[in-house]
Amino acid sequence: MNIAIYGYGNLGKGVEYAVRQNPDVTLTGIYTRRDPAAVHPVGNVPVYHVSDLLKRKNEIDVLVICGGSATDLPEMTPALAKDFNVVDSFDTHAKIPAHFEAVDAAAKANGHTALISGGWDPGMFSLNRLYASVILPEGRDYTFWGRGVSQGHSDAIRRIKGVKDARQYTVPVPAAVDAVRAGKNPVLTTREKHTRECYVVAEEGADLARIEREIKEMPNYFSDYDTTVTFISAEEMAKNHAGLPHGGSVIRTGKTGDGSHTHVIEYSLKLDSNPEFTAGVLVALARAVDRLNRRGDVGCKTVFDIAPADLSPLSPAELRAKML
Amino acid sequence: MNIAIYGYGNLGKGVEYAVRQNPDVTLTGIYTRRDPAAVHPVGNVPVYHVSDLLKRKNEIDVLVICGGSATDLPEMTPALAKDFNVVDSFDTHAKIPAHFEAVDAAAKANGHTALISGGWDPGMFSLNRLYASVILPEGRDYTFWGRGVSQGHSDAIRRIKGVKDARQYTVPVPAAVDAVRAGKNPVLTTREKHTRECYVVAEEGADLARIEREIKEMPNYFSDYDTTVTFISAEEMAKNHAGLPHGGSVIRTGKTGDGSHTHVIEYSLKLDSNPEFTAGVLVALARAVDRLNRRGDVGCKTVFDIAPADLSPLSPAELRAKML
Repeated sequence: MNIAIYGYGNLGKGVEYAVRQNPDVTLTGIYTRRDPAAVHPVGNVPVYHVSDLLKRKNEIDVLVICGGSATDLPEMTPALAKDFNVVDSFDTHAKIPAHFEAVDAAAKANGHTALISGGWDPGMFSLNRLYASVILPEGRDYTFWGRGVSQGHSDAIRRIKGVKDARQYTVPVPAAVDAVRAGKNPVLTTREKHTRECYVVAEEGADLARIEREIKEMPNYFSDYDTTVTFISAEEMAKNHAGLPHGGSVIRTGKTGDGSHTHVIEYSLKLDSNPEFTAGVLVALARAVDRLNRRGDVGCKTVFDIAPADLSPLSPAELRAKML
Repeated sequence: MNIAIYGYGNLGKGVEYAVRQNPDVTLTGIYTRRDPAAVHPVGNVPVYHVSDLLKRKNEIDVLVICGGSATDLPEMTPALAKDFNVVDSFDTHAKIPAHFEAVDAAAKANGHTALISGGWDPGMFSLNRLYASVILPEGRDYTFWGRGVSQGHSDAIRRIKGVKDARQYTVPVPAAVDAVRAGKNPVLTTREKHTRECYVVAEEGADLARIEREIKEMPNYFSDYDTTVTFISAEEMAKNHAGLPHGGSVIRTGKTGDGSHTHVIEYSLKLDSNPEFTAGVLVALARAVDRLNRRGDVGCKTVFDIAPADLSPLSPAELRAKML
């Protein structure tokens, strides 16, 4: 099975690495909007300009689109689904239904299969919300994110005047997680679930008090949270905050029987690299998309529509013998 | 959708309770090999003798078979799959391939859909082994069971001369779990992963030293484990060991990128009632079996073959809007 990468940032690079761990998958090219000569893959993979994409259509079973959710993917995925089977990691939860409709129309009209919103949230966390909800219909679920770097929140801080660089960690409140795990079904406000830790490199002479105030008062991003701001040097940023760790937990608790039995289902991730983990999910999903398309199952899909066996290189009989 | 229960022990009772939490599912009958007058459901559900089953075929979309894996299910599921769509919880891992073949032949020959080995292990744990393995192909996974009651091990103790009652708890070794969670990829022997705690009510005058020795030396069940045996009174057994709690964790750790990034995926369950939780899984699987059969997708399936959306009463659009 041949895949290609569309867009070579952190996620695209993660997909390149992930392909190396999947012997049934071949990476036939990396496509970029930049000058291909300026893009340096970690391995021996050809880099093409995106304008060459249609010329090489027969080299691509599935195109893994590694663009951003804010502006790239809402345009790219429906456009590319006309000519390719595609996978993306669109993660703006509120806009998923609209994105789905646009991609579904393009894919169906052209006999392609598309999978949107792959990754871990949306993605593996969504799957676990669904599985847990059907097993324990009378229950409540909780999603905690972190401790990890939120790239959206880090970017928001960087847009403040006087900020040279910033890194924002989302941190679950331990007492909230403990109460949920204990099956106490707490009702939690936004502030009670997560705190936000900001590390900021300021320009020389910048008004630190103003920067801190602007961060803490920023609506949607920080004003509903207990936020701490720590000013650090560029050297400390490079040394201690270069990675993109993330993770979190989906926990559902519910009652069964006559109401006297409580159950706790927890799915948790501890990730050293958010983009590399996401890339691993996307490559498995690309395998399923290829199989669905070969079976004539076209249109837009999400993780909810993929039978788990289609994610694995093993045969159904091998899966039953080894993993069931 | 109409389901019926075949066999009314702890699991069958759990299914009866689970149906109450699923408004789209109706329980049309409980079928028993005993005298129906001797079976007392918790709700207002008709109880029939199994000999009445074929007469009431049109009342049953899916039959949930609640028998034991040792002798019941290998006979029952292939036989019943000739006349019904069925779900079972066959859990003898080594014999799953043979069971699958027998059920598949019966179901396919008669246009029925069957799902075998539903529950949590096999079942939800299997799904998590599969999902984690495709995301992190270069990794290792670990399944820990407990702390919880193993009914098979409890039964094995009860067969020893001089034993009136017994309850065996399987307990993961905390140091092993911690090492796995820390991403250390330890190689663990059977003894290093779990300990076994046995609570035994002995007959008056029985030779306690002999009973303890026979337990600890029992091959397969206990000889490979650090086992503790505690003799207790029948009253203490009834008071402190009446429940059937269980649970455990599936953990996979793996590396990505250039090998410097480690990831930990963990799925864990803490269950107050093993049979009631298993029943919740079976009812969700029965919903999927009904849908597959209506679509003409016949034969034997496992959890690996079920697209998650088919487990839920919500529509695909609702799932995308609410859970993705």
